[in-house]
Amino acid sequence: MTLFTPMLRDSPLSEIFSDENTLQRMLDFEAALARATALCGVTPESSMTIISAQCQADKLDIPAIAQAAAGAGNLAIPLVKQLTANVKQQDEQAARYVHWGATSQDVIDTGLILQLREAIDASEALLEQLISALIEQIQRHQHSVMPGRTWMQHALPITFGLKLAGTLDALLRWRERLQEMKPRVLVLQFGGAAGTLASLNEQGVAVAQALANSLSLNQPDTPWHSQRDRLLEVASWFAGVSTTLGKFANDFSLLMQTEVAEVGEPVAPGRGGSSTMPHKRNPVSCAAILTATTRIPGLMATLYASQNQQHERALGGWQAEWETLPQLITLAGGVMQTTRELFSGMQVNTDKMRANLDITHGLIMAESITLALAKSLGKQAAHHLVEQLCHRALDENQPLAALLEQHPQVIPHLSSTQIAYLLDPQHALGSNDKFIHQVLARAAQQNREPT
Amino acid sequence: MTLFTPMLRDSPLSEIFSDENTLQRMLDFEAALARATALCGVTPESSMTIISAQCQADKLDIPAIAQAAAGAGNLAIPLVKQLTANVKQQDEQAARYVHWGATSQDVIDTGLILQLREAIDASEALLEQLISALIEQIQRHQHSVMPGRTWMQHALPITFGLKLAGTLDALLRWRERLQEMKPRVLVLQFGGAAGTLASLNEQGVAVAQALANSLSLNQPDTPWHSQRDRLLEVASWFAGVSTTLGKFANDFSLLMQTEVAEVGEPVAPGRGGSSTMPHKRNPVSCAAILTATTRIPGLMATLYASQNQQHERALGGWQAEWETLPQLITLAGGVMQTTRELFSGMQVNTDKMRANLDITHGLIMAESITLALAKSLGKQAAHHLVEQLCHRALDENQPLAALLEQHPQVIPHLSSTQIAYLLDPQHALGSNDKFIHQVLARAAQQNREPT
Amino acid sequence: MTLFTPMLRDSPLSEIFSDENTLQRMLDFEAALARATALCGVTPESSMTIISAQCQADKLDIPAIAQAAAGAGNLAIPLVKQLTANVKQQDEQAARYVHWGATSQDVIDTGLILQLREAIDASEALLEQLISALIEQIQRHQHSVMPGRTWMQHALPITFGLKLAGTLDALLRWRERLQEMKPRVLVLQFGGAAGTLASLNEQGVAVAQALANSLSLNQPDTPWHSQRDRLLEVASWFAGVSTTLGKFANDFSLLMQTEVAEVGEPVAPGRGGSSTMPHKRNPVSCAAILTATTRIPGLMATLYASQNQQHERALGGWQAEWETLPQLITLAGGVMQTTRELFSGMQVNTDKMRANLDITHGLIMAESITLALAKSLGKQAAHHLVEQLCHRALDENQPLAALLEQHPQVIPHLSSTQIAYLLDPQHALGSNDKFIHQVLARAAQQNREPT
Amino acid sequence: MTLFTPMLRDSPLSEIFSDENTLQRMLDFEAALARATALCGVTPESSMTIISAQCQADKLDIPAIAQAAAGAGNLAIPLVKQLTANVKQQDEQAARYVHWGATSQDVIDTGLILQLREAIDASEALLEQLISALIEQIQRHQHSVMPGRTWMQHALPITFGLKLAGTLDALLRWRERLQEMKPRVLVLQFGGAAGTLASLNEQGVAVAQALANSLSLNQPDTPWHSQRDRLLEVASWFAGVSTTLGKFANDFSLLMQTEVAEVGEPVAPGRGGSSTMPHKRNPVSCAAILTATTRIPGLMATLYASQNQQHERALGGWQAEWETLPQLITLAGGVMQTTRELFSGMQVNTDKMRANLDITHGLIMAESITLALAKSLGKQAAHHLVEQLCHRALDENQPLAALLEQHPQVIPHLSSTQIAYLLDPQHALGSNDKFIHQVLARAAQQNREPT
Repeated sequence: MTLFTPMLRDSPLSEIFSDENTLQRMLDFEAALARATALCGVTPESSMTIISAQCQADKLDIPAIAQAAAGAGNLAIPLVKQLTANVKQQDEQAARYVHWGATSQDVIDTGLILQLREAIDASEALLEQLISALIEQIQRHQHSVMPGRTWMQHALPITFGLKLAGTLDALLRWRERLQEMKPRVLVLQFGGAAGTLASLNEQGVAVAQALANSLSLNQPDTPWHSQRDRLLEVASWFAGVSTTLGKFANDFSLLMQTEVAEVGEPVAPGRGGSSTMPHKRNPVSCAAILTATTRIPGLMATLYASQNQQHERALGGWQAEWETLPQLITLAGGVMQTTRELFSGMQVNTDKMRANLDITHGLIMAESITLALAKSLGKQAAHHLVEQLCHRALDENQPLAALLEQHPQVIPHLSSTQIAYLLDPQHALGSNDKFIHQVLARAAQQNREPT
Repeated sequence: MTLFTPMLRDSPLSEIFSDENTLQRMLDFEAALARATALCGVTPESSMTIISAQCQADKLDIPAIAQAAAGAGNLAIPLVKQLTANVKQQDEQAARYVHWGATSQDVIDTGLILQLREAIDASEALLEQLISALIEQIQRHQHSVMPGRTWMQHALPITFGLKLAGTLDALLRWRERLQEMKPRVLVLQFGGAAGTLASLNEQGVAVAQALANSLSLNQPDTPWHSQRDRLLEVASWFAGVSTTLGKFANDFSLLMQTEVAEVGEPVAPGRGGSSTMPHKRNPVSCAAILTATTRIPGLMATLYASQNQQHERALGGWQAEWETLPQLITLAGGVMQTTRELFSGMQVNTDKMRANLDITHGLIMAESITLALAKSLGKQAAHHLVEQLCHRALDENQPLAALLEQHPQVIPHLSSTQIAYLLDPQHALGSNDKFIHQVLARAAQQNREPT
Repeated sequence: MTLFTPMLRDSPLSEIFSDENTLQRMLDFEAALARATALCGVTPESSMTIISAQCQADKLDIPAIAQAAAGAGNLAIPLVKQLTANVKQQDEQAARYVHWGATSQDVIDTGLILQLREAIDASEALLEQLISALIEQIQRHQHSVMPGRTWMQHALPITFGLKLAGTLDALLRWRERLQEMKPRVLVLQFGGAAGTLASLNEQGVAVAQALANSLSLNQPDTPWHSQRDRLLEVASWFAGVSTTLGKFANDFSLLMQTEVAEVGEPVAPGRGGSSTMPHKRNPVSCAAILTATTRIPGLMATLYASQNQQHERALGGWQAEWETLPQLITLAGGVMQTTRELFSGMQVNTDKMRANLDITHGLIMAESITLALAKSLGKQAAHHLVEQLCHRALDENQPLAALLEQHPQVIPHLSSTQIAYLLDPQHALGSNDKFIHQVLARAAQQNREPT
Repeated sequence: MTLFTPMLRDSPLSEIFSDENTLQRMLDFEAALARATALCGVTPESSMTIISAQCQADKLDIPAIAQAAAGAGNLAIPLVKQLTANVKQQDEQAARYVHWGATSQDVIDTGLILQLREAIDASEALLEQLISALIEQIQRHQHSVMPGRTWMQHALPITFGLKLAGTLDALLRWRERLQEMKPRVLVLQFGGAAGTLASLNEQGVAVAQALANSLSLNQPDTPWHSQRDRLLEVASWFAGVSTTLGKFANDFSLLMQTEVAEVGEPVAPGRGGSSTMPHKRNPVSCAAILTATTRIPGLMATLYASQNQQHERALGGWQAEWETLPQLITLAGGVMQTTRELFSGMQVNTDKMRANLDITHGLIMAESITLALAKSLGKQAAHHLVEQLCHRALDENQPLAALLEQHPQVIPHLSSTQIAYLLDPQHALGSNDKFIHQVLARAAQQNREPT
């Protein structure tokens, strides 16, 4: 189904997992293998150039490969068969040395790793853009007071900057994890039929090293045909970043609700309109993000389940990765790309944020009162008193200030001026600004000291 | 990714969920709506024919629809826009009545239901073929003795027919569930913008009835834009049938192991060969089935998660169905199709089954001895004695018969002849045949009394 | 962890899955087996009474069973060992006939089925209470106008009754499915060591029938030790009902948001207060329900994964059911119980519902205007015009009515009176009432014709 | 359900997540908070000692807390209430300062982090034991030749040491990830009602720092009440290690199959016996491990789903962590503990490994022949020829050697001696030993340079 690709997967990552690029990266392995085996004297140098020249995806009959893969059990068998035939047309001798020493999974897995390297590079760029855009919005909104909401109820005032800073804080952690992950996961797969490189005799490790060098990949200590924790780590990164952004999109869609109306998605012609309700501006970007993040837990469950791979090559678990990992990563690409646009172009209505703080008649500031009264009445008694007055304010639709000013237990302890001060959201932001500054400082430091 | 479609989704169900058919079924809704509104006098009859004539997917610019859906948030908005433009070219008046009274989700959901009806019909045919092929194999193998295995260890003898009968028994239950499900799920979606058919005023239900009639769908009591249990039921059916068949494929691959070698996949040129090991016959059909069933739990998790749809139309949950449900169903189609070929063409080595029964030197028959001895020694004492002798047989690599014949506690109770009789697997099949006959009888009865 | 049992699992279903009841239902199997084998003349009648008398969970050393199960691999082995010892103390002869002909999984699975029967009975009662409470609220609120919301934005007016009717419609379907499921799933498990009842020779099926009769269970055609679709069906029912109710709880919590405030949870002392914010009334019931429904997709994924059970008894898949199924069902019990209280005691603020309809200055009624204008201007032109005016109304914070009355394209077609009529939510409910009546009628019919 | 705790969760991690320890760690937070606020001059020093002295879980009425949590919505509210009451009995004044400045989630989350620190410490110890035991077995079995198996079919020879080395390689990566994770996740949660520490005014960050110091936790840049990626990271680690070990257990159970019989679980009295089949030795340890790893994908799906937490405190997502994370971690503890015993005590039958290599009449060595012939005949021709001979060997039950020696296309290129050499598994291990040495060297290096 490609009908939903523009909606859900519109990012540079999608092209990386196209059918053609998937096969091209496998061919990159075959070309590098021809070089590495020639370099180690295992195959004749003459065949190297001839093979390499044929390692172009546009020389393949892709539908035929897909069809033959059904019988062969994987893509590599028909790909190598076509490649060999193409090489043979150039040079019968060279055709003997195609795929020398490798097994199907070597080419499939290393091809995947080359795709993952491209995907990681593209995601790193997207992540940097996300971080930059977010920093800018935080700086713009570090004083934009709004209701903090817990349990989907007004709690205490925060700033919109702090809300965004929480997301930035998480993204900075994902940036750290990405750096830790890269050297561990971007490794060669090369083990031959059962992971011993038997057919290369004594030269297996030397060829492997030359092959890793040629592809600029790290060389693992052992083949990992059925040890898939690296792929899990990559998947976890994409899934994790996405769910961090999904949390943001969900909050955003809550803030866009008709009654709340504190933010809006970027406006563009034809974007988010309804077929029947002309007044609506549907949060289509949030919907696209949430669509992906609704699916990601299930995709991760599949990847965890597929860790159970039998013996030296699996039956089911390995194959379950083939479409699942690209699906996950391209959905994550869409999430990152869409959120980047949301970060840059979001509409923020700071007046509505401020206005919403008042709809509970001052109740949102009740904790300030409780704490002030707690000093004299004790915490539980203060809590109990303010709770009662809050319920009265709600029931009688009266401002809390008025009830406080008139209450005999309050009068001895708080003046009207004190009450007004305590009920002003601007005076009740505690460490809001410090928290924001801490995150911004870490972001700046990470930017200065890139790993 | 279509590289894996022939491997994983080679069944009639895939075409049903092609981009083109997805849009065609939406157009079927629009054509039927034009008929229904005209029939009820809501729209002019003249427009009906003109609109219907344009409801052909090949008149659409599908890539443009996919692209526009990203901004619009769904496929229906750009589809209706294109359809309206096409109608307008024929008749400006008629263009006013396109999509009359409907909301985007009405056309999307009803289109999906029409696809599900096609998918259910195709699956029902596949299921019948599965059942027929299985019945034939059961009849052929109701006396093919083999080791029953529990905890992946030899337990007691069973027949291959009984093993297959367990799968048949489950498939007969899936057949029942399919019949119960159909009238409940194959229903119209028609509620308009918020589920009240407001724009049709008093005529909503009448138009809905005409529309349902026109599409041969049932009419639900209320619109179900955000009540998705019907889709869950459909998904559960496809997932359930698939996991039943996945259990079979897993057993089959275990029986195909080099050391067990009791069965083999159908042989075909180029099928299941290895790129480097010419002697191998990889269970590629089992692998394809297990690939799907490894992914299905995660897909079902997504569909359960997406049940949580907000208010009258969801933000994320609904949209998460769009690719997930077709993925699940087309994978299930592949599972059914591939298993059908396995059922028909499987190679069964009854000699190896019989031979494998002997590799434990008679230990697999130990329970018969225990039970015979229990009558004299009591159950726990008999169990204890036989357990000891079994361990000796294993440790000393001796047949159990010999040890029994010589044991002073056994001699008073069992003669050599009795021991030999008790150790013959053919005499220890208990109700094996009756169980098989019970399932076959139910299958026959279901066939006679189709619902 | 039992700290969260009162919060998440406070229903009659929890006791059914207590350690003690789990063992008692296994003992019920053993007692019935003693009866059935005696009845068929397989074991002496004298032992039947002695064994039955010992089949009391309070005679077991439960911690010892749990401990021994770790080595034995299941609960049945140590349970049968303790039971046999207890019987032996009464009568050495009778002890020989404990567990006669059965395998561990027979007693474990049948014990589970007996628990499931109890759980289904209890759930059926809860479901009836849910349906009754909901019918009452629908009747109360069939005319309570409120904003219908799509994409979490105001769409068109609906009634609160219609929103509730959607849930009722789903619950009536779950009621149907429950009736279809019961005879299929409430069946005996009895197959002996490998599913052939080998140790009972010719009498297996007769004993099985007597055993099923004794336990009032249906007799399946074959043992189902590794065919687990029945358990999947039961699990799906509990998961499905829960997610239907989870959708309701999510909507409810959205309606409880401070800015929306259309509903409230039942008030009770100490319920939903905040430790620090005295004004808050946290939706603790919704939270409990949503906690469960957030977990259910993962639990269902596990049960789908565990369908893959090897050969005649599984290694991992079967055992994964042991805690997962009770967890799912007891969480579902909590969901049903908590929702029942929510249905009965919910606070509904119909004034706020009505007031919220007005916060978009009439925009929510824009479709009525569009449709009225479409008759003269054509659908797309009308849509385009009203969309423009809606945006102006939003931007300029003006009522839509005023803008319409002054617009040159509108004046020729709609008078002020017509505009006012079209903008009144009460006149725009379309088939709202009919849909409600259809569901209530089906509920009444189901009540009259219980299956 | 505790019946399965000894089977599935028998490790030091279980006690860490007991009800009592859960509450104790929350009390540790409260005690440290009393210290920190006193240290910063926010609360009187006198109250500090009194409060600290009451922070003992054995002074709590745990069932009452569980019950009250149902109404309160979390454990902290009733815990703080009991603590306050207990402090009040000692000193009315001090009672005012209990929980000063904190919100429920601060105490719950920090308590959890303290539990996670304990769990990580315990797991690190288990991981070291796993690694040590594995190194020992690798050294013992680096020359134990056995069939490498791909697609569950014999492929080429490997050593048992290499198979184990793959697991060790993965465990060394998990050790790295653990070290990277610890400083990032072991952080304080302290943000007050909405994440601003409003009630501490200017002193919030200072108190937070003192609190973090007191608990030896890192101080995060912002409160993370609804940013849960750290918990996801912890969960992913436990899930990942477990699935690595689950892959091992699955392989082990395959190797234990009656026909394969290359390994066995440690023998212990009463361990793995069958209730009805005295000869069986069920892989009960593998079953326990696989039970856990069958459940882990679903538990991870839940944790991914629960990442979507609304605004400043969630409704459903947060609460879904409460039982899920402990379940996952205690299951992982059981997996680690059980596998450790398996690693140390496994029975390895190297004779059977060697014997199994021969059951395909030399076919497992076919690749050596193919490669040797490829030099003369070309790769595809050689592959084709050997494939044909392999099929003949299988069909005619003849050794491959005999067929090769007689074949006209082979005779010119390979002598009988060469054929015999090429068919000896010992000569076909390629880089098997080098791979093993590479992993062992990295293990040794990690041991020397602990992070």
